[in-house]
Amino acid sequence: MAKVLTSRLENYAQWYNDLVIKADLAENSAVRGCMVIKPYGYAIWERMQAELDRMFKETGHVNAYFPLLIPKSFFSREASHVEGFAKECAVVTHYRLTADKENGGVKVDPTAKLEEELIIRPTSETIIWNTYKNWIQSYRDLPLLINQWSNVVRWEMRTRLFLRTAEFLWQEGHTAHETREEAVEETLKILNIYATFAEQYLAIPVIKGSKTETEKFAGAIDTYCIEALMQDGKALQAGTSHFLGQNFAKAFDVMFASKEGKQEYVWATSWGVSTRLMGALVMAHSDDNGLVLPPKLAPQQVVIVPIYKTPEEYSATVERAHQIKSALLKRGITVKVDDRDTHKPGWKFAEYELKGVPLRIAIGPRDLENGTVEVARRDTLTKITVNQEQLEILVPSLLDQMQSDIYEKALNFRTLNTKRADTWSEFLQRIEEGGFISAHWDGTPETEKAIQEETKATIRCIPLNEEPESGICIKTGKPSKQRVLFARAY
Amino acid sequence: MAKVLTSRLENYAQWYNDLVIKADLAENSAVRGCMVIKPYGYAIWERMQAELDRMFKETGHVNAYFPLLIPKSFFSREASHVEGFAKECAVVTHYRLTADKENGGVKVDPTAKLEEELIIRPTSETIIWNTYKNWIQSYRDLPLLINQWSNVVRWEMRTRLFLRTAEFLWQEGHTAHETREEAVEETLKILNIYATFAEQYLAIPVIKGSKTETEKFAGAIDTYCIEALMQDGKALQAGTSHFLGQNFAKAFDVMFASKEGKQEYVWATSWGVSTRLMGALVMAHSDDNGLVLPPKLAPQQVVIVPIYKTPEEYSATVERAHQIKSALLKRGITVKVDDRDTHKPGWKFAEYELKGVPLRIAIGPRDLENGTVEVARRDTLTKITVNQEQLEILVPSLLDQMQSDIYEKALNFRTLNTKRADTWSEFLQRIEEGGFISAHWDGTPETEKAIQEETKATIRCIPLNEEPESGICIKTGKPSKQRVLFARAY
Repeated sequence: MAKVLTSRLENYAQWYNDLVIKADLAENSAVRGCMVIKPYGYAIWERMQAELDRMFKETGHVNAYFPLLIPKSFFSREASHVEGFAKECAVVTHYRLTADKENGGVKVDPTAKLEEELIIRPTSETIIWNTYKNWIQSYRDLPLLINQWSNVVRWEMRTRLFLRTAEFLWQEGHTAHETREEAVEETLKILNIYATFAEQYLAIPVIKGSKTETEKFAGAIDTYCIEALMQDGKALQAGTSHFLGQNFAKAFDVMFASKEGKQEYVWATSWGVSTRLMGALVMAHSDDNGLVLPPKLAPQQVVIVPIYKTPEEYSATVERAHQIKSALLKRGITVKVDDRDTHKPGWKFAEYELKGVPLRIAIGPRDLENGTVEVARRDTLTKITVNQEQLEILVPSLLDQMQSDIYEKALNFRTLNTKRADTWSEFLQRIEEGGFISAHWDGTPETEKAIQEETKATIRCIPLNEEPESGICIKTGKPSKQRVLFARAY
Repeated sequence: MAKVLTSRLENYAQWYNDLVIKADLAENSAVRGCMVIKPYGYAIWERMQAELDRMFKETGHVNAYFPLLIPKSFFSREASHVEGFAKECAVVTHYRLTADKENGGVKVDPTAKLEEELIIRPTSETIIWNTYKNWIQSYRDLPLLINQWSNVVRWEMRTRLFLRTAEFLWQEGHTAHETREEAVEETLKILNIYATFAEQYLAIPVIKGSKTETEKFAGAIDTYCIEALMQDGKALQAGTSHFLGQNFAKAFDVMFASKEGKQEYVWATSWGVSTRLMGALVMAHSDDNGLVLPPKLAPQQVVIVPIYKTPEEYSATVERAHQIKSALLKRGITVKVDDRDTHKPGWKFAEYELKGVPLRIAIGPRDLENGTVEVARRDTLTKITVNQEQLEILVPSLLDQMQSDIYEKALNFRTLNTKRADTWSEFLQRIEEGGFISAHWDGTPETEKAIQEETKATIRCIPLNEEPESGICIKTGKPSKQRVLFARAY
């Protein structure tokens, strides 16, 4: 099969787009900026959802569902939220179509205009806190630990499949607490869940940190994030967890009677990850042959391809393939036998490489004689010949090995591409090389903006797990208390 | 505890509304006609989703996701679909808000008007068939068996929680096939899945049938449905499966190269069930004390309530309660121990009756001495005292028994309330009594309409599993080939 992908070196952005489309993950729809998530892509997203949902529930969270549409006036209630979110939104102004007698088809019925316009949720803090007002009276009603799986719309001008789309799927958690301490603890608990999920399932190492004032969520006191590094040296924000203080409680007048009988405002958090993680997954691990999927998220972990020339060889290899499949299924492994005789083995090999199936088992007439099979790893593209009897033990252990090898490879890449810069000229050089740059900054939004304008690099986060260290700002020479992490980012 | 619900006899509609709200299933939101599904209600919906999703996947279907927004012009492509769906819709006309300097807050930016308005999907046939056009070239691409879990919006004027809301959650399947026979087979396969799900999980007996021309889906050749009977004698359509013929393939120009090399239009089906099932579940089984949930869908199947006076009794009963919980968890049963000392046992009993927890186990100091517990069934409100050692065997078998008893009770109710009518006066009397009425009809939309206008009864379906039988129409006296099922309906 001819190479179907642009190579990463040639054009990374084009490689990404080719891969998302040709591996059947997603495609653009007829509606500008909105994507169709195809069955193979959706199957990966479903696996992500299942693991995250389990992790949320194990930590006491429950799911609920709040309306898609939010009254326009709600956005004005929290002063900084309106700045951040009441801008590029999809606005519903009418509720009826009627026959267009002049031009045929249908037109908007001018008599069916809403009194107040409705906004398709870009995020749900406002409608949820307006609801929580009725749910919370006393400390006995707290904490409220609620998550929602939903679609949201933000009218982005420049869109890219999974990374930035007008409509995307996500989960948004919204919790309410008695005290500041409890809300901060929740914010960090979720940040840790996101980091664990990224590292153990996506196999992507992440840096946990807090955002600067400029980069934080509109309406938050503190925004924490996990930041990942892609193969082109650009950073990607993979999840955020916000400590909202009492901002939304005050905006929506949500008070509770404390144990001491006082009326107090409720403390809040919100947090989310989205289908953007699909983009991160693709860009972190895949290669010029196609997807590389961590086994824990692969819809099919093993594919078995029979090799044959004659009808007799076909039946014999296919029969053995199905026996192997049954044995592996019992071990909890997802397996497909591709016994189509409309496609050649070589075509199938390329197809499953493109789709990122972790292990490919080929079985031919000689293997039948010898009791062997050929096992190929997708991540390393290496092949080994093994006894069929070994497969039940070997396959699960190979899949575990691949999961950790894929992670280690990404971790090594990040380590190699995380550098310090102590002077402005060093910073300029590093930023062209790509990767994370750890550097001192004077802490002002003005300097942050100047650096971004000159280099397109932003402060990805102030890392949580780093020792404070005095130094001087790379840009202004003013004093700094801690290094922060810069990068160009998606 | 005082009765918190209006009784069914007093006011069935009010009882339903009270129950949905007081059992924490759902409530109205700040947006007209849109509901908030609360965590307890959503947990039941999640169980429904999990079972249906499993059944769809076991029959070869996969999930995907298509855009929320549909270009207005798409609705005009299929002639009868536009009549049915391009009416009461939420219409997006603008994509930006801007600061309102005169009145404060935000206003719609008049410069950000869309060239073509976008409609929030009321159902997705149009956008999906527009996408399928690119996915289908040859018979090798067929069948396409795709399902979507999503939210839809239909601008209903009179709304009721779960039963009829402007926004609701559902699944919509959209399949594409080579032949008419295969598409019809798929339509009926799904109808059978819906019926099995309703009977085995919701514990609601259903009648499978086809809709009349008047009642069928806008754009379908045939609509099949499952119809259930509620306790007030009104029918409820619980799911529909549509054979769409080649209507959407022609509207969106979706052709495939057949095995014989000819270009042919694709055959289609679509099918869906929604959060309306939550309303059916409540109305089919619940009583004046609260919800009655079939054990297979109950978020908690067992609650254990300790009975105590002294702190010593508290620790001893709670300790034993947790031991029982552990033993039952191992049997795959969901159990909660309510060890709150802020509420009296009587309050807890009423609360779990309201919430429909199938089994309640009470354990007091005398039980500790005797090695017993009191087990109360929610459906029959009966109590038995049993040995603690028996619980591991008894509880699973009681839950199974309850699942089938709840179904049998609903089936008996339906049998008692399904009657024949052979004359118009008999029909008028029966329709006032409520229930299904099996009667002859001359097959014309005019007669169907006349009957509906006079009695508010509609033809729920032409039952699939009934022998044809000649007779004369109850209304016009004209000849009829088969009895159809009438009822007043939700």
